[in-house]
Amino acid sequence: MKFGVDYYPEHCSKEHWEWDADKMQEAGIDVVRMAEFSWIKMEPSEGQYDFAWLDEAIEVLSRRGIKTVLGTPSPAPPIWIIEQNPEILPVNMQGQRLGFGGRHHNCQSNETYRNHIRRFVRVMARHYQNNPHVIGWQTDNELGNSHQQLCTCDSCRVRFHQWLEKKYGTIEALNEAWGTVFWSQTYSRFDQIPAPLPTPNSHNPSFLLDWKRFCSDLIVDFQKLQIDILREECPNHFITHNFMGFFDKTDYFKLAKDLDFISHDQYPMPFWEARLSKTSPPHLAMALDLMRGTKQQTFWIMEQLAGPTGWEVISSTPRPGQIRLWTYQSIAHGADTIVYFRWDTCLVGTEQYWHGILPHSRIPGRRYAEIKQTIQELAPHMDKFRNCLPQAEVGILFSYDQEWALQIQPHHPQLNYVEHLRSYYKGFFDANVPVDIVSDEEEYSRYKVLVAPLLFLTHPELRRKLYGYVASGGHLVLSMRTGVKDWNNAVIPKTLPGEFSELLGILIEDYDCLRQFDQGLRWTAGTEAAEEDANLWCDIITLNGAEMLAEYSREFYAGTPAITRNAYEQGQAYYVGTELRPDIMRLFIEEVLDKAGVGRITRSPEGVEVTRRRGQDAEYLFVINHNNAEADVAVSEKWQALVGGEVLQNSTLRLAPFGVALFHCPLG
Amino acid sequence: MKFGVDYYPEHCSKEHWEWDADKMQEAGIDVVRMAEFSWIKMEPSEGQYDFAWLDEAIEVLSRRGIKTVLGTPSPAPPIWIIEQNPEILPVNMQGQRLGFGGRHHNCQSNETYRNHIRRFVRVMARHYQNNPHVIGWQTDNELGNSHQQLCTCDSCRVRFHQWLEKKYGTIEALNEAWGTVFWSQTYSRFDQIPAPLPTPNSHNPSFLLDWKRFCSDLIVDFQKLQIDILREECPNHFITHNFMGFFDKTDYFKLAKDLDFISHDQYPMPFWEARLSKTSPPHLAMALDLMRGTKQQTFWIMEQLAGPTGWEVISSTPRPGQIRLWTYQSIAHGADTIVYFRWDTCLVGTEQYWHGILPHSRIPGRRYAEIKQTIQELAPHMDKFRNCLPQAEVGILFSYDQEWALQIQPHHPQLNYVEHLRSYYKGFFDANVPVDIVSDEEEYSRYKVLVAPLLFLTHPELRRKLYGYVASGGHLVLSMRTGVKDWNNAVIPKTLPGEFSELLGILIEDYDCLRQFDQGLRWTAGTEAAEEDANLWCDIITLNGAEMLAEYSREFYAGTPAITRNAYEQGQAYYVGTELRPDIMRLFIEEVLDKAGVGRITRSPEGVEVTRRRGQDAEYLFVINHNNAEADVAVSEKWQALVGGEVLQNSTLRLAPFGVALFHCPLG
Amino acid sequence: MKFGVDYYPEHCSKEHWEWDADKMQEAGIDVVRMAEFSWIKMEPSEGQYDFAWLDEAIEVLSRRGIKTVLGTPSPAPPIWIIEQNPEILPVNMQGQRLGFGGRHHNCQSNETYRNHIRRFVRVMARHYQNNPHVIGWQTDNELGNSHQQLCTCDSCRVRFHQWLEKKYGTIEALNEAWGTVFWSQTYSRFDQIPAPLPTPNSHNPSFLLDWKRFCSDLIVDFQKLQIDILREECPNHFITHNFMGFFDKTDYFKLAKDLDFISHDQYPMPFWEARLSKTSPPHLAMALDLMRGTKQQTFWIMEQLAGPTGWEVISSTPRPGQIRLWTYQSIAHGADTIVYFRWDTCLVGTEQYWHGILPHSRIPGRRYAEIKQTIQELAPHMDKFRNCLPQAEVGILFSYDQEWALQIQPHHPQLNYVEHLRSYYKGFFDANVPVDIVSDEEEYSRYKVLVAPLLFLTHPELRRKLYGYVASGGHLVLSMRTGVKDWNNAVIPKTLPGEFSELLGILIEDYDCLRQFDQGLRWTAGTEAAEEDANLWCDIITLNGAEMLAEYSREFYAGTPAITRNAYEQGQAYYVGTELRPDIMRLFIEEVLDKAGVGRITRSPEGVEVTRRRGQDAEYLFVINHNNAEADVAVSEKWQALVGGEVLQNSTLRLAPFGVALFHCPLG
Repeated sequence: MKFGVDYYPEHCSKEHWEWDADKMQEAGIDVVRMAEFSWIKMEPSEGQYDFAWLDEAIEVLSRRGIKTVLGTPSPAPPIWIIEQNPEILPVNMQGQRLGFGGRHHNCQSNETYRNHIRRFVRVMARHYQNNPHVIGWQTDNELGNSHQQLCTCDSCRVRFHQWLEKKYGTIEALNEAWGTVFWSQTYSRFDQIPAPLPTPNSHNPSFLLDWKRFCSDLIVDFQKLQIDILREECPNHFITHNFMGFFDKTDYFKLAKDLDFISHDQYPMPFWEARLSKTSPPHLAMALDLMRGTKQQTFWIMEQLAGPTGWEVISSTPRPGQIRLWTYQSIAHGADTIVYFRWDTCLVGTEQYWHGILPHSRIPGRRYAEIKQTIQELAPHMDKFRNCLPQAEVGILFSYDQEWALQIQPHHPQLNYVEHLRSYYKGFFDANVPVDIVSDEEEYSRYKVLVAPLLFLTHPELRRKLYGYVASGGHLVLSMRTGVKDWNNAVIPKTLPGEFSELLGILIEDYDCLRQFDQGLRWTAGTEAAEEDANLWCDIITLNGAEMLAEYSREFYAGTPAITRNAYEQGQAYYVGTELRPDIMRLFIEEVLDKAGVGRITRSPEGVEVTRRRGQDAEYLFVINHNNAEADVAVSEKWQALVGGEVLQNSTLRLAPFGVALFHCPLG
Repeated sequence: MKFGVDYYPEHCSKEHWEWDADKMQEAGIDVVRMAEFSWIKMEPSEGQYDFAWLDEAIEVLSRRGIKTVLGTPSPAPPIWIIEQNPEILPVNMQGQRLGFGGRHHNCQSNETYRNHIRRFVRVMARHYQNNPHVIGWQTDNELGNSHQQLCTCDSCRVRFHQWLEKKYGTIEALNEAWGTVFWSQTYSRFDQIPAPLPTPNSHNPSFLLDWKRFCSDLIVDFQKLQIDILREECPNHFITHNFMGFFDKTDYFKLAKDLDFISHDQYPMPFWEARLSKTSPPHLAMALDLMRGTKQQTFWIMEQLAGPTGWEVISSTPRPGQIRLWTYQSIAHGADTIVYFRWDTCLVGTEQYWHGILPHSRIPGRRYAEIKQTIQELAPHMDKFRNCLPQAEVGILFSYDQEWALQIQPHHPQLNYVEHLRSYYKGFFDANVPVDIVSDEEEYSRYKVLVAPLLFLTHPELRRKLYGYVASGGHLVLSMRTGVKDWNNAVIPKTLPGEFSELLGILIEDYDCLRQFDQGLRWTAGTEAAEEDANLWCDIITLNGAEMLAEYSREFYAGTPAITRNAYEQGQAYYVGTELRPDIMRLFIEEVLDKAGVGRITRSPEGVEVTRRRGQDAEYLFVINHNNAEADVAVSEKWQALVGGEVLQNSTLRLAPFGVALFHCPLG
Repeated sequence: MKFGVDYYPEHCSKEHWEWDADKMQEAGIDVVRMAEFSWIKMEPSEGQYDFAWLDEAIEVLSRRGIKTVLGTPSPAPPIWIIEQNPEILPVNMQGQRLGFGGRHHNCQSNETYRNHIRRFVRVMARHYQNNPHVIGWQTDNELGNSHQQLCTCDSCRVRFHQWLEKKYGTIEALNEAWGTVFWSQTYSRFDQIPAPLPTPNSHNPSFLLDWKRFCSDLIVDFQKLQIDILREECPNHFITHNFMGFFDKTDYFKLAKDLDFISHDQYPMPFWEARLSKTSPPHLAMALDLMRGTKQQTFWIMEQLAGPTGWEVISSTPRPGQIRLWTYQSIAHGADTIVYFRWDTCLVGTEQYWHGILPHSRIPGRRYAEIKQTIQELAPHMDKFRNCLPQAEVGILFSYDQEWALQIQPHHPQLNYVEHLRSYYKGFFDANVPVDIVSDEEEYSRYKVLVAPLLFLTHPELRRKLYGYVASGGHLVLSMRTGVKDWNNAVIPKTLPGEFSELLGILIEDYDCLRQFDQGLRWTAGTEAAEEDANLWCDIITLNGAEMLAEYSREFYAGTPAITRNAYEQGQAYYVGTELRPDIMRLFIEEVLDKAGVGRITRSPEGVEVTRRRGQDAEYLFVINHNNAEADVAVSEKWQALVGGEVLQNSTLRLAPFGVALFHCPLG
């Protein structure tokens, strides 16, 4: 499968189906996803099943060679389920039971609801197990995230008690790990422990972290329920799930484990105010790299933006070329199959303005034409880079445990774990250096450089692994708040950076959260000078073997080190005691890359992304101009144009606004 | 009746009553409104009635020739009602039952409460049916609005089910109209449908629109309950209700139908932060025109500001002249009777700082003097313009259905239906062109120009009427998002402007919500050049017979039309694809007025309003200086001064800061 | 006792205790506070008591001469209490019951919980009544404030009814006092009265004020419960409680009455966004003066900041010298004993980042060194100024009733009672004039100047006292909104300033809340000219015997008086009709001080505080440089240096950034 669409035949009259299939075929579509919100159409009342409409839709598509991926409809329990057992409805963090009328109005621990899913998924799986046009399954939809908040109902609380008992064994062990001695919170039985509902003062941070972990595991378990049935009934079908990049309700590394491959929903246009910062080109690239990183494997885009998005409020319209550009970017970072969301635009319901390829009128317009062109120019090459990956020399460690712990205690109100990571990612992105996003369970030896920012929580095994990485010649970058806590969110009683002091050759006896006073940063290594503001936090560092790369420039700790480097056995260990702004980040990244001997693909102007995938026989170079203006990029002559590289002159590629180019180079 | 006050004799000691009545008489007051919050004084416990105090107050006033309008006290159910049946208390949109302690702590569908009202209103009506000093009734108080949110209790939900069943007949018809196929929301019985309480993701927009309509109809029904009794018992009394301008909880066109005439509460000073934008002179004028428009009939001001207003926070004090000015403005736009709120200033309770004519000390001050002067100079003329209206040549269509639909889906977070309308209204206001605000049920043929902005929802009859209006020579202005949806809030599957394409001679195949990118606008018609930013939204227009009046100036659709005009049979149809800022609005309004042959009364500086009412024998011209500075206006010699026009020189009228003048001109 | 630490031996392993005690002794610590959150450690299950661990900790400390103050652990009821009687959990102002997991998860009226306290406090008191190392008790912890909101549960509502019945006697008296005639809110029985839960429109302001008073009294009563037992069982121990400066949940003047002396928690670094304005040097000084003023007596600091503070977010780190500086400031304003919060830094729980003297590593660092130095240089002098007070010639009246009434009705959204007071306080602070903060029950005759800002509520006795104060030669400053209301929060029907008109020689017939229009202020007295904006509110004043000191400069009341002075018998009565900005405040304070003959200690640059305490034999002068820069101050030669005054040259003292100096001068 190369290119697909998300299709909702039930949203339109049957008379459109044949025409739809023709137009899909004309555009080069070879796969659709269907049915993930259509429970009531398939089971209008309990035990009465109706798959005829879906069978017919699959059949109509199959006659144009279009295969089907089916979604299990668990995100949308019908009213007849809720009516019988309203306790299935979820309870939010305010203790308020949420009602019917949206989607995902279900508690994920509720056994009554799980039994409905068990029954229905088995019936559906058996119905389609031998349908030759069905090739695989998507479990549910965007698990965890459209619930907005996790459920705090009694069923979840009971399951939390079981989860805690399994983890800690005895209540004494839990009391010790959480430090419940503080404020007389000691428990004598697991079933005394509350859900994190409002309390007069803040909850215990160790309790809150375990709650977030429990909720994440509950989602993994909720998915597993379906996967077990699907594996049993449909052994020849693949199983995937559509992830959502940096959404945070579940640990995607864990959710990925049970899947054949993961899928991702990529929406690069902002429409809710809060997401404006999450659609910059490096953020989009970083999200794709995280998706690849959940299994270190290529993936599908299950929902690729195909028009303006929005519910009550709407994004800008994608500029001509942007849908094509984002398709290239997805593939450049490891997507093997691109499914556009959605074929048509729904006339009714909450997503009336989540525009598909076709507008409300169903008359193909510029977006259909752009997607058709994109498929035509890319389809011939898709098989070549299938299963080939970017071969990054740099890894960035991403950890849900760190993110959750820093959400619970952000220190500075503006401190955000993902944004801190992105500041490093952008440094490499701007230097055109491919990056892998890796978990804390990964093997790091294949990376010349490993960046593990905000490594707030650590456990002995992780520390051993990082020492070993540097000892064997790795270049490790750690940043502020590293080594503060154990894995239970309790502080480790050592002078910071705690267990990392030896590795880093420094001591931190004081630190300064930048709330009331500001601070400056001065780059002191090399010949290029730079001075910028420090950001959010400053560790006040004493060298204990390390050398200084940058210093603070103001206040009582002016002149003390802000960035350090320590030679440790075969490798180098860097420490950055604050959050860097772009200029010093650029100098720092260059310093690290040079020292580690990491090559850059090429230099390119701001906003022009150059990255690559390496296959068995060739490397593929993607040049992507995210700017709404022309841009020139130097491209070495070894690269042969596949798409869009025709205008190469004097090794200079001129890209149109939002333009892209694809090159290849046979491996010698 | 010409001038009145809202009077609360129960708020002060009886010893003040005679003095109060004397001072009212001295100021020229001939009517009071009383009793609309005084249930507990009239029925201290169930079935024990005490009207003696009110009888006496009526009597005291009547001895000075002052008539009484009585309010039914349904906005303030006493504690003994709530205590017996706490389920009367309303439930807000968060599912939270609100308590006793304010006012309007009642669900409007609750039958127990309705029975209390039936009993009490009948007793009260019988008591006053033959009192010669009582002339009419006000139902309740500001219906809908002081509830803040509409009630979501079980009683309301059941009544919603009945309303839906009456509207749709079958649940299948409802499912079809709402598009419940989306997200498996299909219902099998009406009684499954929820109230719009919080749900994990957003509710269906068709459901939400019907909920708002139901709530509006419920208020109309709640008022009808009282009106039926009052008509039966008091056939010689008029019945009115005090509306609140652009408040949005009920469709005032519908609420007005059952009344003899409507009244309005006009508060032109901002005190809650959110209302700052709602007190500009054109907004105040537009609110008055809407009030007149609910029945296309003159009206009362039942509460005209008489001092600083506020509850916990307080407005500025009215400047000397402003109370007089706002009185003139109310009359200029169609008020026949002005009742000031309130006589004295309450020493206790929530409205301690909602200042009346008298201050807390009861010693008449500058506001008493100003109102007395105003009454003295206006009273002789009030009969002359009774029942005469402005005779506008321009209509602006206002529709609660559009407003509600755009509240549910504002598209751009800053898009606001009333503000969009006001941008047009201000164009006419600045040009001194009187405007009628009309409903979608109105006959439009009497207008040379009809502006129907944001005509988001349409039905076939409305479309036929608008085509007919233009065909017969009308000049119609439509704006962005016209023709998008049917009356059930489902999208019409046509290329925009949908059914209006032929009328407008354009096609809109793409549109751009101005979230991430900005856009400019360049006026291209006529000789005067202007360039301004586009605002909120841009329709990307293809001419299909129309001509271009303005174009976009930036981005990929630079040079495409933003404002168009199409000759259609005898008339002209304009389309404005974005929200206009003042300069281009001015040019556009002039273009439309000139083409349609609409006259302006005169030219005046910004903030000086010139408008008129036309009676049987004469026209009356009101010149109102909203500025805190002197202003000069040219006034033709045909106008003869009635008030304040003495300083006329060379046809130039010099107005003091906040000054006014009144002229008349006998009709030939 | 001179210097102490708050100590939580239960938060760390017993192996640290001996070392901790050694290090405390080394630093000069002679007292600790313990146990106020340790209920579960002392009573792990109902009736099973375990004081062994605490006995041992007291013993270990006593061997280094360190005495113990014990806290009663009522702020942290264990889970076994809550589990048996969940109705103990408090209900917030939204009607939401708050859960276990923080602290202060208890309703203060609940009798079941009170019985647990009665039982436990008696057992604990008996256990320690004869322990020679225990010297006193702290009741609970920061009563009222960590509840965040006061409880609205049924138990509290019943107790509110009792409180009201006791206050008003009959329901008719309550109806009259509250003005329940407004909006038909008249009650027939006390038990009909609601808690102030959400209602569709705002509650009655008299009801709200009584609720706040009731809640305050409930806290006083809740503390009394414990005090009665402690007095009975431990007649030789002192009893104190840790107050929180300008926190507002309870009337500290009343809470102080039952205590031997009060204590205060002083946290001069901002970390929650909202508190940024509450850590300026004059605000810190004013808070200390209020604390002294609650009993007009010296006090303890029970929690003096010892490091960065914070829970989820963290403050800046204290600059070198700041902990010392704030210790001096506390003593300068009347603290006799300084207890630092806390000894170590907790590794677990909500307060992991509320840093103690020792960091997480327990390795003494710069903060330990600074505190050790501070104690060493101050300890020799502490006995000399014990029980000696600043001997202020100026008093500022602070009243919780005014504050609560203005919270209920702030008039202008930015009007804040404490900030208004602080604008005056800062005037005296900048002039180095010591101030007492006094209640409305105080005797004022000892002050040359008394400032009673925003005296919104008054009662006859207070008015008599203020007239008498001026008549006898006092200089009284009153400001805007004085005399508006009676003590029940009902408006007094007089022309403002009501009963103060004669005293002030002015009348206020109009006023202008600065919402829509601005206003300017021009100083007209004396020779120094100044013009500044008026702020928030303007009284429009007619002179009736008074003279004008400043006038308004804009709008229709330009040229009318803004500040006035009236000679009344032997004294002077000033009125300030608006909120002053710094320049005119400075001129006004100078005018008042000169007229009243109040001396200033010296002149000093902005941010350099100079103040003093006067003992039996000598005066002590504290010079405190709050600036992060050097500063020079003139110090008369009569002062002899005790600490830090060595660099005196030509009577000029040069202070380092955050530097301090202490002088003394024997009383002749």
